[in-house]
Amino acid sequence: MDRVPIWIMRQAGRYLPAYQAVRAKHDFLTMCHEPELSAEVTLQPVREFGFDAAIIFSDILLPLEPMGIDVQFVEGKGPRLSPQIRTREDVEKLIEVDFDASSCFLGKALRMVRSELGAEKALIGFAGAPWTMACYAVEGMGSRDYAVVKQMMNSDPAALHALLDQLTTVLIRWLRMQLEAGADAFQVFDSWADALAPMDYREFALPYLHRMFNALRDMGKPGILFSKDAGAFVEENHQLPMDVLAMDWRVDLASIRNRYLGIGPRAYQGNLDPLVLLGTRDILIKKAGKILSENAGMPGYIFNLGHGITPATPVENVRVLVELVHGYRRPQ
Amino acid sequence: MDRVPIWIMRQAGRYLPAYQAVRAKHDFLTMCHEPELSAEVTLQPVREFGFDAAIIFSDILLPLEPMGIDVQFVEGKGPRLSPQIRTREDVEKLIEVDFDASSCFLGKALRMVRSELGAEKALIGFAGAPWTMACYAVEGMGSRDYAVVKQMMNSDPAALHALLDQLTTVLIRWLRMQLEAGADAFQVFDSWADALAPMDYREFALPYLHRMFNALRDMGKPGILFSKDAGAFVEENHQLPMDVLAMDWRVDLASIRNRYLGIGPRAYQGNLDPLVLLGTRDILIKKAGKILSENAGMPGYIFNLGHGITPATPVENVRVLVELVHGYRRPQ
Repeated sequence: MDRVPIWIMRQAGRYLPAYQAVRAKHDFLTMCHEPELSAEVTLQPVREFGFDAAIIFSDILLPLEPMGIDVQFVEGKGPRLSPQIRTREDVEKLIEVDFDASSCFLGKALRMVRSELGAEKALIGFAGAPWTMACYAVEGMGSRDYAVVKQMMNSDPAALHALLDQLTTVLIRWLRMQLEAGADAFQVFDSWADALAPMDYREFALPYLHRMFNALRDMGKPGILFSKDAGAFVEENHQLPMDVLAMDWRVDLASIRNRYLGIGPRAYQGNLDPLVLLGTRDILIKKAGKILSENAGMPGYIFNLGHGITPATPVENVRVLVELVHGYRRPQ
Repeated sequence: MDRVPIWIMRQAGRYLPAYQAVRAKHDFLTMCHEPELSAEVTLQPVREFGFDAAIIFSDILLPLEPMGIDVQFVEGKGPRLSPQIRTREDVEKLIEVDFDASSCFLGKALRMVRSELGAEKALIGFAGAPWTMACYAVEGMGSRDYAVVKQMMNSDPAALHALLDQLTTVLIRWLRMQLEAGADAFQVFDSWADALAPMDYREFALPYLHRMFNALRDMGKPGILFSKDAGAFVEENHQLPMDVLAMDWRVDLASIRNRYLGIGPRAYQGNLDPLVLLGTRDILIKKAGKILSENAGMPGYIFNLGHGITPATPVENVRVLVELVHGYRRPQ
């Protein structure tokens, strides 16, 4: 194929009127838990824009619920989790749950989407990275400076490792279930990698990511890592046994590929600043065009944003972007 | 000198009881505007811990006031600026102000501190980087995603360049005044560099930083750049004519120095994660010791945190850190 494929993070989301129409009738968690609803909003942006992949509509926090953590989404504030997991005893109370692809709501949703999606489109499952999930479990909500989880890291690192270990086990099962249910690939979101110093990334994030990608290799389906602040840990991430490295918008993908030629992942994904979609059509075409022309020559390159699309994005600009990418021809 | 020097960002701040005693009687802006008060809190941490440098107590937003922007600090919320500068017309209304070292409150404070500070201690002045200052001027407050300033960047880049140009002129004067008043060095804070894609960093941040450092070379005093998300723009920042590159905690200073040997700045500063100071003494000593041992051999290396010290930091841990650094002997 000489066409560059494109999908965008949070492509099923608030910027899209069809999504808002469903969301007006159901709260966010209900939409995640009802296979018909999540399948529907997963398919909407593919129908609307012709994206080359559908990413299942879900939330990284959902596997925490059967582990014994209550998850609520507070309008305008974000997630609130309880209890918070802050001691060894808290970790030991967590349930090391497994998932069944035929009965789990997410498995059902994936099967529905897979059966409706054209054969030429990929279906992507996903999970949070162990470190990012541990941040939520410990802090109980989003955090600006991750003070609580870092206090745990810098006063009782063994308890944090126990939590990371258990999360990794469950997250591997969560992804395996998704792949068994029909996902063609999976993406791991390490949204909060950007909190860590290199020595901490190597101790508290990298080994668990390694274990996750390794454990899923027998499924024979590509794994993508999205790492926030990819610039800081680009060296470490190139050691991971994943297939695609997705990066935020703060790095030049092409220069990274040149630096790590032959030792990195099979392909790169990214990385337009999502806020470029709020600007003029001319500047959007110029900036997206620059990323395209720099990266389209890389084997396996996938166009995406460097972070999730924002709710204020005009739908028309998404159409312009998809047409631009699909109209571009890879250099021969 | 075979001792590694140390100072820490926000060393005059809320974690320190002596500071809190002054702050209890005066609001933040008054403390900035009254030379006796800002001089006093500037000196407190040097007396208390024996830091090797004092950084003047001030705020990066202050030079905006005489330019015609009202600056308020709302308790628990942060700064609020008005009017916001969002169009070419807004920019043209700004006053391209100059500063007089003998009459300006900040010049007076610097002279007071310099006269009380031991000759072996350095006094550091500072300013925000043009990009970071433009973010505040446009957004009117702190921002999570910089959507407003990026909308300006991606729809009317010429207006943003006009703002950056004017800010750069004023910030150079602001720093020159500080050096004339007795500052021995200056630090430029590009706290919000981490919002930018490389192509935008090269267009909207780098040229103005270059102009600032160049314009101040005739003063013959060292300039330090603190860049948030230093990992992403390490290559670009090594092209700048500054003396010291200060980095956040998400990079290995030593490996960066090895990569850019001979083409970088004279020295590096950093970069312990400030939240390590909330942990146990043992882990603090282990992590700070690792940074020390990796970097102390670099000529000119200055120990610092990778970001400002947090209010919750126990004073005792600051003492442990300073003793550790001062007790360390550089390899010969």
